[in-house]
Amino acid sequence: MSTQHAPPVQRLVTELSKLPGVGNRTAQRLAFHLLRASAEDASALAEAIVEVKEKIRLCEICFNLTDETRCRICTDQRRDHALVCVVEEPSDVIPMERTHEYHGVYHVLGGALSPIDGVDPEDLKIAELLVRVRGEGPAAEPGGGPMREVVLATNPTTTGEATALHIAEELRRLSPELTVTRLASGLPVGSDLEYADEVTLGKAFAGRRAV
Amino acid sequence: MSTQHAPPVQRLVTELSKLPGVGNRTAQRLAFHLLRASAEDASALAEAIVEVKEKIRLCEICFNLTDETRCRICTDQRRDHALVCVVEEPSDVIPMERTHEYHGVYHVLGGALSPIDGVDPEDLKIAELLVRVRGEGPAAEPGGGPMREVVLATNPTTTGEATALHIAEELRRLSPELTVTRLASGLPVGSDLEYADEVTLGKAFAGRRAV
Repeated sequence: MSTQHAPPVQRLVTELSKLPGVGNRTAQRLAFHLLRASAEDASALAEAIVEVKEKIRLCEICFNLTDETRCRICTDQRRDHALVCVVEEPSDVIPMERTHEYHGVYHVLGGALSPIDGVDPEDLKIAELLVRVRGEGPAAEPGGGPMREVVLATNPTTTGEATALHIAEELRRLSPELTVTRLASGLPVGSDLEYADEVTLGKAFAGRRAV
Repeated sequence: MSTQHAPPVQRLVTELSKLPGVGNRTAQRLAFHLLRASAEDASALAEAIVEVKEKIRLCEICFNLTDETRCRICTDQRRDHALVCVVEEPSDVIPMERTHEYHGVYHVLGGALSPIDGVDPEDLKIAELLVRVRGEGPAAEPGGGPMREVVLATNPTTTGEATALHIAEELRRLSPELTVTRLASGLPVGSDLEYADEVTLGKAFAGRRAV
């Protein structure tokens, strides 16, 4: 197929098809869209890509994405800085924030333990979490005392569970009076029992609560 | 949601969500992918977008996309320059080429007639098609004599059909001995009669051929 496009079009199709979930057909559709789009829209996209790579770095406290030294959540005095939610990736902060139920801070590990893929504890920001929990994080962290509760919000997957277990053990060794919790597993709201997989249903049963 | 991203991330999400078929969630996923991607991959995409807008223009003969004055198909001496396939958009050339059945040249109209949307014959490259059919196209078009056959390959939609009818009439007026054909409508290969819509099935019946 490649010889049918002019080289600049083919190059764009190739680069677009490196995006997740974008196959060759979709990449072609996106390329033709960009060819039809105004010069302003196309260059706005190109500039946004360049800018995000230039300006975005990791918050020195929680390792979430930020364009400052510290992210907006870590510098927000109204949030509870003694309650920390541990997530795998920066993208996991978004759904937590969307609940509007959580007013603590975050700690982004940068992945999940997976010895098979060569991801060991020292590849994640676990040591940095322990330092924060002891209240010995970067100087002048707002409300920089020791933590009261750590919510382990890694994914409900094999690697996410292993990561949560590992961190829970480290935290217990560090400070026995610290509260360590894990997000509940169970049936998604609005779902149907009939279509629930048995692992989820088992977890929902095990985690049943008095009404 | 928007306040949760650092501004450069939000800008990228906004620009990505202008792409067709890309909603807010997908745009976020793509943005996080680009943040994780290597600086080389990200800038290669940005540069490909800029390059395609700078270098790609319309072929002066057929109005397909090209990075030269004339496209590869129009300058290919091995193709049949007396046989022209008329399509709506540059993206329609790709599936035709993929058949490996067609060895003529193309003429890209740049859309389909749609009075409701304000697309009239003079908004499409119809006059330019008539000039080419008479063999009076841009000087030194390879094999630049009059056309032998015009295949109308506009989409099998209301606007595509209207466009094909309009062009067929113009061509008949121009040169009665010219062969004007239209792509066959019928059942897609590999499809099931049971699931065919009645319009397609009707067309397939009307176009039935002796075996």
